[in-house]
Amino acid sequence: MHATPFEEYDGRDWFAPEADPLRFALVGLGGFTQDWILPAVEASDLARTTCLVSGSPGKADRVAAEYDVDHALTYEEFTAGTAADAYDAVYVCTPNATHLEYVRAAAAAGKHVLCEKPMEATLGRAEDLVAVCEDEGVTLMVAYRLQVNPVVRWLREVVRGGALGDPVHVRGTMGQDIFEMVSPDRDQWRLDDDLSGGAALIDLGIYPLNATRFLLDADPVAGGARTASENDAFADVDEHVGFVVEFDDGTLGSYTASQQSLTTSSLQITGTAGELTLEPAYFGHVEVTLRTETATTTLDAGEENEMRREFDYFGSCVHRGERPEPDGEHALADMRAITGLYDAADTGVWGGF
Amino acid sequence: MHATPFEEYDGRDWFAPEADPLRFALVGLGGFTQDWILPAVEASDLARTTCLVSGSPGKADRVAAEYDVDHALTYEEFTAGTAADAYDAVYVCTPNATHLEYVRAAAAAGKHVLCEKPMEATLGRAEDLVAVCEDEGVTLMVAYRLQVNPVVRWLREVVRGGALGDPVHVRGTMGQDIFEMVSPDRDQWRLDDDLSGGAALIDLGIYPLNATRFLLDADPVAGGARTASENDAFADVDEHVGFVVEFDDGTLGSYTASQQSLTTSSLQITGTAGELTLEPAYFGHVEVTLRTETATTTLDAGEENEMRREFDYFGSCVHRGERPEPDGEHALADMRAITGLYDAADTGVWGGF
Repeated sequence: MHATPFEEYDGRDWFAPEADPLRFALVGLGGFTQDWILPAVEASDLARTTCLVSGSPGKADRVAAEYDVDHALTYEEFTAGTAADAYDAVYVCTPNATHLEYVRAAAAAGKHVLCEKPMEATLGRAEDLVAVCEDEGVTLMVAYRLQVNPVVRWLREVVRGGALGDPVHVRGTMGQDIFEMVSPDRDQWRLDDDLSGGAALIDLGIYPLNATRFLLDADPVAGGARTASENDAFADVDEHVGFVVEFDDGTLGSYTASQQSLTTSSLQITGTAGELTLEPAYFGHVEVTLRTETATTTLDAGEENEMRREFDYFGSCVHRGERPEPDGEHALADMRAITGLYDAADTGVWGGF
Repeated sequence: MHATPFEEYDGRDWFAPEADPLRFALVGLGGFTQDWILPAVEASDLARTTCLVSGSPGKADRVAAEYDVDHALTYEEFTAGTAADAYDAVYVCTPNATHLEYVRAAAAAGKHVLCEKPMEATLGRAEDLVAVCEDEGVTLMVAYRLQVNPVVRWLREVVRGGALGDPVHVRGTMGQDIFEMVSPDRDQWRLDDDLSGGAALIDLGIYPLNATRFLLDADPVAGGARTASENDAFADVDEHVGFVVEFDDGTLGSYTASQQSLTTSSLQITGTAGELTLEPAYFGHVEVTLRTETATTTLDAGEENEMRREFDYFGSCVHRGERPEPDGEHALADMRAITGLYDAADTGVWGGF
């Protein structure tokens, strides 16, 4: 191992393909799509927004006018195939339990699919979503944006190169005040179990879980969890969660997540020879520490537009006819783990996934 | 809350009593006693070593000569009361499953007891140990040295003052390579379940667990755990562990510990308004970060001789006739949690403590 491997990092793009931009319908115009995705697609050389889909009367028209987008549709018009010639792919960012419906319509029309995480509200619906895309032969990617952050991809190579020795144990967390970060609405769909499938674990715990998988090339095989809800708004879903996951390489991970805490995001992997810490980790700005017995090196990778990179990467995959790394099967492993962890929290019994 | 509360920390002693030094028999002359405790007692104004007890032929005599200690005893001589007039208290640092035997002998002779953690190898023997000291009316303290570190006591006041808002979730770890840090011997008692009661959880996981309790004034009420052993030397005990604990204030903690990883030690408490990180945490040198929405402040408290302070504090408690904070009842809460977590790991069922 290089004594200070971080000197080798130059922050360059990890791929730079050339292709005509993929034309997107953005399905679901909530705050995340408007604040982050629309500007990210504008910044991407490999994607372009040609259609907006919303259920709120007037919203699609208003946003389309603001961003000079040609087509504004209702969900009914979208599922009926209106203006389908105007786009090649869809980005789906609607309530989790509605992903399947819009992906089904898109895939049936031969459109490629970039779907927000979690993939769906339940494992069964997620499996259907993957099957629909397979059956129709369209490309499916789930929007694990950390995986396209250049510094995180570079760190995976550092780990593969043996910088940690054998990975042994992992801690991670993601926390936020959902009413400050997402919406002050106490009746929002994210707090309705039928629409979301959960809150702390499925919406936030998925970040350190998936980041562990990505950095270790490992998959979760079993786990246990404890959920807790204190505030009335979370009567239906998990406000907080603590969970332990065993990975197929033998690594043990312990995690927490909360929808009612100070914003926090981190991952720490301890091996036999080194320890890698990402903190903050999941909000675009990644700071990294690599510690060994002899040296501690730090790297502030700065702000990264992970959303633009995920549209770039997805566009490139479609253009080259390649499967994205975070494809349906990859995302199903998270859904199986999350389902197993919620079951473990309900029953109090450690379970295989 | 003060904008930068760390400016208020002056590193002063949190107590400075005056008293004649308490005379100690040090029971068990392993590496920790020789390398850390003997020098710490020499440095303490409130303690003095007057007797050394060892089972290894010649070792007590050899060390007694080196440190100019009056009495060197075998375990048999110690339990028979030889030279009992020469000491007022005992420090017990023998294999976990032998603590009860030596504490019983000491308490029966009216000697006060400073006992290493974990208190014993099993909950039942730990309960007997507490009862013996209660029955004989001697002072019992368990050696949770982090609790006497001035910066950690000051941090408890910061937390009590509301710097974190309501505590919500906690991560923590302690890891080491036992063959580098403790002894290269693959047959050492720490890897014999009958003598130790376990390895990763009871010997290392106890650190972040107890530190959480201390900083939050909270006790563990239930939990789940997963243990794993890869190397033959750990066939009998847990080499690694991941565990989740629910505390009586509703806080959820997720932890890992390992006897075969890079040395690592940390605790991170996230509340509704702030986040407190101790990293490193459990090796005398504590570095602290307090982060809120508006500011991040750091404090490197430097090297601290926690062993000297625990002898100072114990001597002061005995002199003033006060119960130490980490008394038998306090330590039993850890033993109940550890026993419950090992049961949970064995059965796969989340359990109350």
